[in-house]
Amino acid sequence: MNTYQPRTDDMQFLLSRVLNAPAQLQALPAFAEVDAALMQQVLEEAGKFVGEVIAPLNRDGDEIGAQWADGAVTMPPGFKGAYQAFWQAGWPALASSTEDGGQGLPSVLEAMLYEMLSAANMGWTMAPGLLHGAYECIKHHASDELKDQYLAKVATGEWLATMCLTEPHAGSDLGLARTKAIPLPDGQYAVSGTKIFISGGEHDLSDNIVHLVLARLPDAPPGPKGLSLFLVPKFYPDGSRSRVHCDRIEEKMGLHGSPTCVMRFDEAVSSIVGEPGKGLNAMFVMMNAARLHVALQGIGLLDAAWQIADAYAQERRQMRAPGKSKSAAESAAEADLISEHPAMRRILDTQRAWVDAGRVLAYRTALELDLIKHSPNADTQAAAQRWCALVTPVMKSVFTHQAFHGGSDCLQVLGGHGYVREWGIQQIVRDARVAMIYEGTNEIQAIDLLVRKVLTDGGTGMNALLDSIALDLPKAAKASTAAQARIQTLRAVTQQIVKASAQDAALAYRVADDYLRAVALVLMDWAWLRIEAGVDDSTPNAQARWIHPAKALRSWVMPEFQMRSFIIVQQCTLAA
Amino acid sequence: MNTYQPRTDDMQFLLSRVLNAPAQLQALPAFAEVDAALMQQVLEEAGKFVGEVIAPLNRDGDEIGAQWADGAVTMPPGFKGAYQAFWQAGWPALASSTEDGGQGLPSVLEAMLYEMLSAANMGWTMAPGLLHGAYECIKHHASDELKDQYLAKVATGEWLATMCLTEPHAGSDLGLARTKAIPLPDGQYAVSGTKIFISGGEHDLSDNIVHLVLARLPDAPPGPKGLSLFLVPKFYPDGSRSRVHCDRIEEKMGLHGSPTCVMRFDEAVSSIVGEPGKGLNAMFVMMNAARLHVALQGIGLLDAAWQIADAYAQERRQMRAPGKSKSAAESAAEADLISEHPAMRRILDTQRAWVDAGRVLAYRTALELDLIKHSPNADTQAAAQRWCALVTPVMKSVFTHQAFHGGSDCLQVLGGHGYVREWGIQQIVRDARVAMIYEGTNEIQAIDLLVRKVLTDGGTGMNALLDSIALDLPKAAKASTAAQARIQTLRAVTQQIVKASAQDAALAYRVADDYLRAVALVLMDWAWLRIEAGVDDSTPNAQARWIHPAKALRSWVMPEFQMRSFIIVQQCTLAA
Repeated sequence: MNTYQPRTDDMQFLLSRVLNAPAQLQALPAFAEVDAALMQQVLEEAGKFVGEVIAPLNRDGDEIGAQWADGAVTMPPGFKGAYQAFWQAGWPALASSTEDGGQGLPSVLEAMLYEMLSAANMGWTMAPGLLHGAYECIKHHASDELKDQYLAKVATGEWLATMCLTEPHAGSDLGLARTKAIPLPDGQYAVSGTKIFISGGEHDLSDNIVHLVLARLPDAPPGPKGLSLFLVPKFYPDGSRSRVHCDRIEEKMGLHGSPTCVMRFDEAVSSIVGEPGKGLNAMFVMMNAARLHVALQGIGLLDAAWQIADAYAQERRQMRAPGKSKSAAESAAEADLISEHPAMRRILDTQRAWVDAGRVLAYRTALELDLIKHSPNADTQAAAQRWCALVTPVMKSVFTHQAFHGGSDCLQVLGGHGYVREWGIQQIVRDARVAMIYEGTNEIQAIDLLVRKVLTDGGTGMNALLDSIALDLPKAAKASTAAQARIQTLRAVTQQIVKASAQDAALAYRVADDYLRAVALVLMDWAWLRIEAGVDDSTPNAQARWIHPAKALRSWVMPEFQMRSFIIVQQCTLAA
Repeated sequence: MNTYQPRTDDMQFLLSRVLNAPAQLQALPAFAEVDAALMQQVLEEAGKFVGEVIAPLNRDGDEIGAQWADGAVTMPPGFKGAYQAFWQAGWPALASSTEDGGQGLPSVLEAMLYEMLSAANMGWTMAPGLLHGAYECIKHHASDELKDQYLAKVATGEWLATMCLTEPHAGSDLGLARTKAIPLPDGQYAVSGTKIFISGGEHDLSDNIVHLVLARLPDAPPGPKGLSLFLVPKFYPDGSRSRVHCDRIEEKMGLHGSPTCVMRFDEAVSSIVGEPGKGLNAMFVMMNAARLHVALQGIGLLDAAWQIADAYAQERRQMRAPGKSKSAAESAAEADLISEHPAMRRILDTQRAWVDAGRVLAYRTALELDLIKHSPNADTQAAAQRWCALVTPVMKSVFTHQAFHGGSDCLQVLGGHGYVREWGIQQIVRDARVAMIYEGTNEIQAIDLLVRKVLTDGGTGMNALLDSIALDLPKAAKASTAAQARIQTLRAVTQQIVKASAQDAALAYRVADDYLRAVALVLMDWAWLRIEAGVDDSTPNAQARWIHPAKALRSWVMPEFQMRSFIIVQQCTLAA
């Protein structure tokens, strides 16, 4: 089995050379001391930890998995030790405030850390994956008393956390949730109900687990506005155990290293977080960051699949490759390398193009999150807000989609050897599938983008985003002309949907997926033009590493843009 | 868990009403007595057997799986009993000649039987799936002595069979195979070597297993022309056991109900089948039928996934569907059915369109196989040969692709419930993945189509196929105009590839996938125009069952044709 190894040199190239991140961050007072050298050092340390400690546990995570017995969950071999090492080294606290015991580093470094972790071992990474969101939620919404008890423990990762949202009859539609919270005389609440699909609801990684639970007060109205947020730990500060039970864990297609729990709250004594009826607001405050992290899972998993396919294709020979100029040494072998066959080369270069476009876009989105938080400039903040609102659902949807479908393409490079356990790639495809569903299904991301964000302002925000992209295309690059043309088409298509939606309320819901894909392609086009602009004679292995994937993007990926535009226009015409 | 249930009424509609199969078959002397009533009776009996006996074993097949111990393989619970009932009822002998103990029925009925079996339980179906090919191979190539010993047992399915081709270093490139066959004084051969990925190499379903093995004689040239075919059973006619050992079975992504065996031949006494050096010819004689069966696996599995998604979507409610005119009774529910949400409706109708196009094309291909075998008319035979040569690789590739990717779309309808075991849909996606690899990877199918079949005659055969499709489009249908235009585009694109290939030998290998997809879309378009022409006022539930999927095909699927043409033309331009 090949285990994933982070290539921090590539990540570094994209961050510094393509996105110019160190200079951007240093311009912010909060990160005045975060220079390129510090960022590189953090990344390299992270890469080392991920490659040496986390990646080797991935197969046992899948094959042994998390085990449930009598309400307790035993994690796969090595998971607990790795987690203890992880939090004690300060990794969960990377982007938490120094005042809460964190390291106060930029979100973009945390994003890159999670990309590597997910690539190496998605099951293990689920456990700390929710920490930062829980930290932000407690920090901004909990009472001072709760903060005293929980904030530092969650900021450092000494205690892990969950988000308890879904119920057997309430998935995408949380407004249907029925879990009840009855006020107690002491100001606390007794929470009762069953939550399902709770990642890390129970485990042995940390001494305590902090649950954030959506529930309904007795006088609450039906629907999402009747939901409040409550905090209940596995163990209270006095050491007593709460009435929160893990009734079972799910058997799943993959992600066996992460226990997906059915959690029963049996009059569990809980504290309210934030105001009554504002439960969803408190949770959704960190939604962009959470969705970005899911996109990074996709990017990381696709990179991991690519690494395996690439290694296999460079090792194994089958048949003669067509149109190859053979040197004497080459034709001595009885067949050519799989990497030399055009159909396989196409898969490898195309998936490489997806991974690196994903990185540029995800790192930029994380930088925009840093700007939202730390920029003193209101215009910069507004532009960053707009970027995150519009780009985050696109990222979540297309890169989780690509991890599964493109990961399957990478599997195909191995033929039958991809379908069996030996090389480890089929695990990636199984693990990746869930990311298309959680944190808002990909269809809901598309509706979020088109219906809730683009149509509500008649396309103004999207046009402003496209302005900024258009201005940032390298003037000298020939491919920029085609990119500008696609941007113009996207503007026109947006206006057509705005207009046609007046006649047909369901139209936007029908074409939302196509619209999201069209936006994604325009963004990827920009990302690759920026990458190419960053490549010069000093770039190692520039042709194979960057220029071939750029060509693959234009040959095999970008033509989808025309198809999506056509589909949308056709539907608009039918609606009119 | 919902188990798949065959809908033989739909299959019957496509066979009789759309393809007019009974009349076509009855025109052949061999099937003069095969009328519509007999075909319906066979189908209904098959549907009953599949639904009642085979489908219920599917989950144990996945979760318990085939178990290896000390060289023996125990099949999952119920598999053996079901197989004994299956062969004793005569199902494997459906399309075998009456003179060999078969029933002499048309291949199309066998194809439909295997579609249902694969949908119900792909793991179980792998065992008899290779029987018919082995039967044809022995019938046409083995000596009379071998036929006496093995033909009837294989024709009836009393004994099961394998195809031992792949070796650790020889997958797609069988020419690299190293297994040796040393002549023995008595005219037999001692076969030694290791074969991998052997489906059903060992099991407890039948009293004996007949292995057909590719191996190399001592004086054989390297490459594919040095391969001969040998037969070695698990037990010889005298009851002694051969030196064929199952060393282990693979752990796989899915298909756990079918043991994928590593088979070691340790000077196993074997008989040659056919002439020395003609081993691949002997095996490839039944390649079209085998590939068609793999396409039918894809069609069946996609139908099974669709059934689950459809049932879930009609049972569960989430949120309000947009643009819905609500009756009083409907708005009394707290949310709308998932089937009413446009993004989910799109998935369901689109995948339905794939399944039924696949059926029309697969059944027609099976009918063409019957014509090849039984038509007294040379022109009919030639046209049927052309259809099978060109259409079979398309079918194998696109419908195995669709089973996985479209099956995943169906899974998406269930959200998190699709990722866990309860509804059974994640098993389908895992099982389906392998069909994109075996029986020639999908990339090899594309190369077979474009490089070996279309380019070798400069596109003449493809043009003749397109002529026959163009003539068969319903004149009255509005959508036929667009279909005709696409056919013209495909002709032009074919000529461009023929021309540009003269400058660039690798071009066809780069665009083979796009070409195959373009051909598939033209075929699907024809299939749906024929389906619509077959629908009238007497067709039950015509709108939802047939007209909506037809619309979905045109809205969401057909636009890919333009994209594929664009990609190909772009590459041809680059090559020129």
